[in-house]
Amino acid sequence: MKKLSNKIINRLTLYHCLLKYSAPENNCISSVEIAELLHLDDSQVRKDIALCGVLGRQKQGYPVTELKQAIEKELGFSTRKEVFIVGAGNLGTALALFSDFKDYGIDVLALFDNDPQKIGQEVRGKRILALSKLENLISRISIKNIVLTVPPEEAQKVTDYAVKCGVQFIWNFTPVVLKVPQSVTIYYENVVSSFLQMRNMMES
Amino acid sequence: MKKLSNKIINRLTLYHCLLKYSAPENNCISSVEIAELLHLDDSQVRKDIALCGVLGRQKQGYPVTELKQAIEKELGFSTRKEVFIVGAGNLGTALALFSDFKDYGIDVLALFDNDPQKIGQEVRGKRILALSKLENLISRISIKNIVLTVPPEEAQKVTDYAVKCGVQFIWNFTPVVLKVPQSVTIYYENVVSSFLQMRNMMES
Repeated sequence: MKKLSNKIINRLTLYHCLLKYSAPENNCISSVEIAELLHLDDSQVRKDIALCGVLGRQKQGYPVTELKQAIEKELGFSTRKEVFIVGAGNLGTALALFSDFKDYGIDVLALFDNDPQKIGQEVRGKRILALSKLENLISRISIKNIVLTVPPEEAQKVTDYAVKCGVQFIWNFTPVVLKVPQSVTIYYENVVSSFLQMRNMMES
Repeated sequence: MKKLSNKIINRLTLYHCLLKYSAPENNCISSVEIAELLHLDDSQVRKDIALCGVLGRQKQGYPVTELKQAIEKELGFSTRKEVFIVGAGNLGTALALFSDFKDYGIDVLALFDNDPQKIGQEVRGKRILALSKLENLISRISIKNIVLTVPPEEAQKVTDYAVKCGVQFIWNFTPVVLKVPQSVTIYYENVVSSFLQMRNMMES
């Protein structure tokens, strides 16, 4: 797979969302239509799509299904990653319910929490397990990725435990900067930063 | 306020999260410590902090409280923006419960939903109102910003209604590319793109 810049990944994902939710399947869509919907330049759209190796048909544009599949291939949707969600609050539950994850290659295997009221329940067929079972499960099925959605005040403590259990990658939805050994990777999903980036676009 | 690049906003926000959640208040922190925690280059950290006009003390580093306040000023935390959350499901509720929003200048005034079971309930003191009341409320208190957290299949319909009600800015957490008039701004919060960007960092 080519190494794509984050900006290109971001645009290709938006094209894919557009094709998936808003374009009629057995039809064509032009770079101008895509560009208008996303407020982009149409030459940019054509350049991005050329990367995926799809050719537009004259006066018709790109075949929707073919373009969708080409983007899926380019972005490697078939490369599956298995994760546990740690923290079955509203955000953890929202992510577990987000059915698109599976399409994009992310398999949520289970959720973990330490609230006795939540343990044993299911979120769309995925069990909520006691956090204390994380170690055992990781050693049995060797999942090294977690999505961290616990409250900020518990984030470091839960991270320490997860690292002890063998977790190697943390997709961190908490606003806490986590201390981990060098061998562990953290990806900060920082909704605050995103808000600050866009705030100036908002009406006051 | 200076126009900062998104990368700088992102790093300053992470420094702020670190100072807020992980650094002792009456103390100093060095650029090397910050850099190590965030896996950044320490010269980069010093450059970013210099932007905020804070000077480090020799052999001690930056005073935590002063640095925190300087970043808040630089990022304009005191510029308040008022929003409605449209869609009181798990994600909308998680965002409404996210107490940090207020610190960062975002005021969630109310939530909207069309589920009779939710209408009338409260999420941490914020009422869930019937979606049909959006128009009236917007005309009365002139809030033009919404956070959109409805299911994908309702996203365009709800957007059409919100635009009709006078909404000017949509922070879109749904994966749907929305059709809106030129005058309306959409900011895509694309967790899928974020996932695809980080996936290659994950253990398989």
